[in-house]
Amino acid sequence: MAIVLGHNQYGKAEVRLVHVGAGRELVDLNVSIALSGDLADAHLSGDNASVLPTDSQKNTVYAFARQHGIDQIEDFALLLARHFVDSQPSITRARVLIESYPWLRLGEHSFQRAGAETRTALVSYDGNDAHVLSGLSDLVLLNTTDSEFAGFIKDPYTTLPETQDRVLATAVNARWRHGSETSDWAASYAAARDLLVAAFARTYSRSLQQTLYAMGSRVLEHRPEIVEVRLSLPNRHHFLVDLSKFGLDNPGEVFVAADRPYGLIEGTVLREGQPAADIAWAAPWSF
Amino acid sequence: MAIVLGHNQYGKAEVRLVHVGAGRELVDLNVSIALSGDLADAHLSGDNASVLPTDSQKNTVYAFARQHGIDQIEDFALLLARHFVDSQPSITRARVLIESYPWLRLGEHSFQRAGAETRTALVSYDGNDAHVLSGLSDLVLLNTTDSEFAGFIKDPYTTLPETQDRVLATAVNARWRHGSETSDWAASYAAARDLLVAAFARTYSRSLQQTLYAMGSRVLEHRPEIVEVRLSLPNRHHFLVDLSKFGLDNPGEVFVAADRPYGLIEGTVLREGQPAADIAWAAPWSF
Amino acid sequence: MAIVLGHNQYGKAEVRLVHVGAGRELVDLNVSIALSGDLADAHLSGDNASVLPTDSQKNTVYAFARQHGIDQIEDFALLLARHFVDSQPSITRARVLIESYPWLRLGEHSFQRAGAETRTALVSYDGNDAHVLSGLSDLVLLNTTDSEFAGFIKDPYTTLPETQDRVLATAVNARWRHGSETSDWAASYAAARDLLVAAFARTYSRSLQQTLYAMGSRVLEHRPEIVEVRLSLPNRHHFLVDLSKFGLDNPGEVFVAADRPYGLIEGTVLREGQPAADIAWAAPWSF
Amino acid sequence: MAIVLGHNQYGKAEVRLVHVGAGRELVDLNVSIALSGDLADAHLSGDNASVLPTDSQKNTVYAFARQHGIDQIEDFALLLARHFVDSQPSITRARVLIESYPWLRLGEHSFQRAGAETRTALVSYDGNDAHVLSGLSDLVLLNTTDSEFAGFIKDPYTTLPETQDRVLATAVNARWRHGSETSDWAASYAAARDLLVAAFARTYSRSLQQTLYAMGSRVLEHRPEIVEVRLSLPNRHHFLVDLSKFGLDNPGEVFVAADRPYGLIEGTVLREGQPAADIAWAAPWSF
Repeated sequence: MAIVLGHNQYGKAEVRLVHVGAGRELVDLNVSIALSGDLADAHLSGDNASVLPTDSQKNTVYAFARQHGIDQIEDFALLLARHFVDSQPSITRARVLIESYPWLRLGEHSFQRAGAETRTALVSYDGNDAHVLSGLSDLVLLNTTDSEFAGFIKDPYTTLPETQDRVLATAVNARWRHGSETSDWAASYAAARDLLVAAFARTYSRSLQQTLYAMGSRVLEHRPEIVEVRLSLPNRHHFLVDLSKFGLDNPGEVFVAADRPYGLIEGTVLREGQPAADIAWAAPWSF
Repeated sequence: MAIVLGHNQYGKAEVRLVHVGAGRELVDLNVSIALSGDLADAHLSGDNASVLPTDSQKNTVYAFARQHGIDQIEDFALLLARHFVDSQPSITRARVLIESYPWLRLGEHSFQRAGAETRTALVSYDGNDAHVLSGLSDLVLLNTTDSEFAGFIKDPYTTLPETQDRVLATAVNARWRHGSETSDWAASYAAARDLLVAAFARTYSRSLQQTLYAMGSRVLEHRPEIVEVRLSLPNRHHFLVDLSKFGLDNPGEVFVAADRPYGLIEGTVLREGQPAADIAWAAPWSF
Repeated sequence: MAIVLGHNQYGKAEVRLVHVGAGRELVDLNVSIALSGDLADAHLSGDNASVLPTDSQKNTVYAFARQHGIDQIEDFALLLARHFVDSQPSITRARVLIESYPWLRLGEHSFQRAGAETRTALVSYDGNDAHVLSGLSDLVLLNTTDSEFAGFIKDPYTTLPETQDRVLATAVNARWRHGSETSDWAASYAAARDLLVAAFARTYSRSLQQTLYAMGSRVLEHRPEIVEVRLSLPNRHHFLVDLSKFGLDNPGEVFVAADRPYGLIEGTVLREGQPAADIAWAAPWSF
Repeated sequence: MAIVLGHNQYGKAEVRLVHVGAGRELVDLNVSIALSGDLADAHLSGDNASVLPTDSQKNTVYAFARQHGIDQIEDFALLLARHFVDSQPSITRARVLIESYPWLRLGEHSFQRAGAETRTALVSYDGNDAHVLSGLSDLVLLNTTDSEFAGFIKDPYTTLPETQDRVLATAVNARWRHGSETSDWAASYAAARDLLVAAFARTYSRSLQQTLYAMGSRVLEHRPEIVEVRLSLPNRHHFLVDLSKFGLDNPGEVFVAADRPYGLIEGTVLREGQPAADIAWAAPWSF
């Protein structure tokens, strides 16, 4: 059987862009681009006639920031994705991932980084349709109670005791798909984020799976512009320390925060009958 | 439209296992498990009757290491994946990712870690078929010459000069799919790795895309048991420093090794007519 | 010349402790311990009769959290340091470093991680005197203006243009020494942190050195309980992007946030005539 | 009491330099510089007349690489340190830290990164004397046997059982001081590294402290040019997994490699009567 080229993509990753607006508002982004199209010659013979250099992609990010300014990251990602496909005959698909780092204003021109939490936008555009995913990562949440884990399978390798009260903690990684290419992105993001947090905090949890579903469905119930939510929730285990060896009880007070291993709970919550959008969800890079 | 649960998976990630064999050979692994199946009740109502705890999955990894020993990671991943699906009625799909860290033997019972390079196996099993991907990550390679980049698109944002001689460096991340569920994994891995390295070192490169294709096709040409290769190659830019300001030339001698941004070149090379195996390639976790 | 053992220390590092108080307040710590003393035999002959195992040190951290609770990290570090020296004849010096991760309360039992900024306490105790350093790390601050850099040395390797307006950004790493072993740690910390931030935000900066001195002296001017401040301030360069190649100006609007290299500005500000306290400042570990 | 400026230093950190020699040999360095001197005005009034910009320091690194080439990192660090002090009246002390990343030659112009292990040189120069420390970091070693830990203190918080056979693993971080400013650095480094590894592998260990002393003294016994060795050895715990719950024994075969907490064992081994050299050992940055 002949050997052939399959799916491929290329682009500039992690372009670090800081934009200071007219009102001294601060936007701090990490922009990654992946382009696909008629690139067989570059692979097979080293003919680069269809290759827009990744360096030019980087330049475009900086130039567009000056030409168009940056308000919402979804719009800036759409602008970039459409530019590459619409201006380059050889490029038939563009995906743009933007991570936005939050800052807190301290004064007219002074700012403080506001945590590890990152807002994201991931846009895919094929010349006709654009899919927009908003999201966030590394939002770390913890409940000290109202979490249990019991009634699970006991196989020969099960030693975990059932518990009616445990600490539940996770770092929320979430993406949600919008039903259309336009929205009030800022309001939608703020609302979706609040709904995720509220669902985590207020769900009496019998498993992190149940909490995950509560988080995703809460967003869909209240935000009609969102059609699908995907969540990846590491279970950051907090183990109660056995202090009985020292003559001490430990009524839910002293815990060890473990690093590895960790549970990883992932799931999709979506509106029934919604057309699939695999292209929207493909990871920006293969692995 | 009703809100429904879509694809979901859960499992224990990053189980760190070190195994000392009878001949004091050392195996050092990081094992991650993702299970899917009849898990709607856990999400919708917090009924865990179908949930095998991630803690039990971790215990299984350690117990199986003692019961079965560990020779090749592909076999150990197959053993684990089949166990979870075949022993649990609620589990219909298992994916097991194993990362293996290399050690160099120094003496009868002494070892030295041998670099950041990691060998990987990713197995998917659905009760009938198993797909086996072997791979490696963080194999860092560099050519000081025999690389050029020219003839590319010049759009209004292109400032990159063409070059006939540059440093080319990358960190190879590769996975390749086997055509069957059994193989001489050790021999196959060693050969595939050597072919990737040889293709990188010996290809006169007009672009990293061309090098990528050369690497993938070289593996397929020589290893009939492998049907598909995917490569993700960051372009670790080494920029020639302009020393003319100091009255010095710089004939390919002094470079700055840049961190970000970087080009990212990804592609698939496969045997024509090969049936697709999307399940094999889905990332172990969603994003 | 004979070969001899010089200074040595040992202990358990990075004990991860989460404590839930009676009012469900959350304390999240990383505790590291370094003990010194009469430990020559352990090194020279492997006689461990004077060695308190690091595992016992870890147990002590967890047991003391239950026995004594945790209010201020300075007090908890003092408690631990005194315990090891006062209870073990072979231990003559203890140093305890505590890093505290901030959480924001969302509800009665729900919390959100509040940024990468870490509060620290470093205590040294030798059986007689205790030195207490409070501090913080990874507080990232940025001014969009009111920063210049000019009038510097021009040597043959200087190409940097003078600038009257630049972005100034840093990640504050600070430690400050208290004059006594008791204080209202919470109030002192809050005030010192606010003074550091205010000095950064309100100083018109001709160099990061000048900003550093303003930060340290501001703390000393307002907090009599503090006798010495040390600051380590990486200069997180934000370079103005040259967009002239694209027919665009760039009046302080579009910047690239660089990773490496970075300037690193470090300095001490102290009250004149204050006795030195080298022991207090020695890094917890050698390098 | 008046507020005054104490010790301070500044410089460019992490200058990434790759040098390709005439024979296509590859040198891959990370260079950090810290300068001290007459810098009070910069701190107190923002007068930068005594400040050599960190950008100029970076340029010097690249220019010197072209002018002088790079053979041994100790010599390159000496060259840089002397240059800054000897050419700038305001600079009275320079410290230069160089980390060198190893590559393995694969062919005439092809290389592969050879592990995480890093060779280091740290030079201090005050206009008269230079101190040279050579060293290495992240050399990970493991013995599967010939390690015990027993006979230690049992206090009320001790639960660790004594063991006659355990896995012993560490990541060696070592620096050693040379007695003079010149040496055959390459031969000295190779020998010292081999002595450290041999001592780790061949010492029957009753504690990591004993192994540490064996490593340091072995270097001093065989290398007269070296006068002092400092070692920082994290104890990378490998815990035997209790499989009895599954009806299995575990005779030193299956271990969990733990991340945190870890023991940290640090010590100095030196020639008796050797003059102290605190300046040589001060960390390049304060904390």
